[in-house]
Amino acid sequence: MSKLVLIRHGQSQWNLSNQFTGWEDVDLSDKGVEEAKEAGKLVKKAGLEFDYAYTSVLTRAIKTLHYALEESDQLWVPETKTWRLNERHYGRLQGLNKKETAEKYGDEQVHIWRRSYDTLPPLLSADDEGSAVNDRRYKDLDPNLIPGGENLKVTLERVMPLWADEIAPKLLDGKNVIIAAHGNSLRALSKYIERISDDDIMDLEMKTGEPVVYEFNDKLEVQNKTKLDK
Amino acid sequence: MSKLVLIRHGQSQWNLSNQFTGWEDVDLSDKGVEEAKEAGKLVKKAGLEFDYAYTSVLTRAIKTLHYALEESDQLWVPETKTWRLNERHYGRLQGLNKKETAEKYGDEQVHIWRRSYDTLPPLLSADDEGSAVNDRRYKDLDPNLIPGGENLKVTLERVMPLWADEIAPKLLDGKNVIIAAHGNSLRALSKYIERISDDDIMDLEMKTGEPVVYEFNDKLEVQNKTKLDK
Repeated sequence: MSKLVLIRHGQSQWNLSNQFTGWEDVDLSDKGVEEAKEAGKLVKKAGLEFDYAYTSVLTRAIKTLHYALEESDQLWVPETKTWRLNERHYGRLQGLNKKETAEKYGDEQVHIWRRSYDTLPPLLSADDEGSAVNDRRYKDLDPNLIPGGENLKVTLERVMPLWADEIAPKLLDGKNVIIAAHGNSLRALSKYIERISDDDIMDLEMKTGEPVVYEFNDKLEVQNKTKLDK
Repeated sequence: MSKLVLIRHGQSQWNLSNQFTGWEDVDLSDKGVEEAKEAGKLVKKAGLEFDYAYTSVLTRAIKTLHYALEESDQLWVPETKTWRLNERHYGRLQGLNKKETAEKYGDEQVHIWRRSYDTLPPLLSADDEGSAVNDRRYKDLDPNLIPGGENLKVTLERVMPLWADEIAPKLLDGKNVIIAAHGNSLRALSKYIERISDDDIMDLEMKTGEPVVYEFNDKLEVQNKTKLDK
């Protein structure tokens, strides 16, 4: 049986300061670094050995992957960094304080932006300073495909090609895969893997730095789901 | 003009304890971590932006790459970890103290093992405990191609396919590449790039953590070589 391990990155600086983050490249906090290392120790204790590693192109997820691999003595595992695992893009909300945004737009509106499956946030345009179009890390991506804001539905749609073309074939081939990514890109992936409904998916919480282990049979059906904790 | 940056990993634990290292997976020392971070700061100060990154499958080189990329705000650059950039395999000498080895075999013999271009060290066989054949990181490599010991000539021969098939095409395409690797795999690559003779190559020293920058024209001829230092 092949195994897939998902790890949500440790606490970031903006988790601490309660800002909407999305595609902004915010670093881990000191606590986040400790969470990532702890995740690696849990992976090692569970004896999990990987063949392939995936992460986003955002520093907080990449560093979480590196700490997790290093602490489990497998930093050499081939790794792929891809925008398809990025956090949900939060559009014009990125950088705003969550509390201040609630005071300005009302709690209900912010709740909808955060928790609706298919409501988009206010969108950035390609001309806006904060647009990812201007970021060198997306230079090889068709600029028409670079989002100005995403909901979870759109996030899932751009995660799926990675699953279909890269991750699923490896799991079907009996390989073990680790993914270190973000609350919403992992929530999207879990929605597909566990066949969770549009209504229920927003109740799925993933703790930072807590490895989630799926075991699959040869039809890619989940046989077992475990969370590793201390 | 495309650019290639070579960085020899920072000081390792066994550099400190004066042991032959080779393919043994020894971590960076604290000083080595600082050297790697400093390399990243020099890269940033020089305004070097990479499209692709390469390193070996050994922790000390991988971590050096990660620190160098992180400190220059480009941890997202795609990276490939390959055994072709590993340090020269030191055969049965791996793990031995250099001074004790000199006392046992004589200074001259050790000098030949260390400095001859084409003399092999005493070889490990596949049955030996320390053989890389038993290491999971080489599981996809034809076991008949896993060395029991290498000289610089053999090291160059196994680095060249990576140059020819992956690195040179990217430089010819105008891309910038960073390689974080080891004293001898980088010396081998430099021998080819600079057309250094078999006799002269062993005089080429690369300092740990000092980025070497090559600029190439569109025929892959070196136009400029610079060392970045403080």
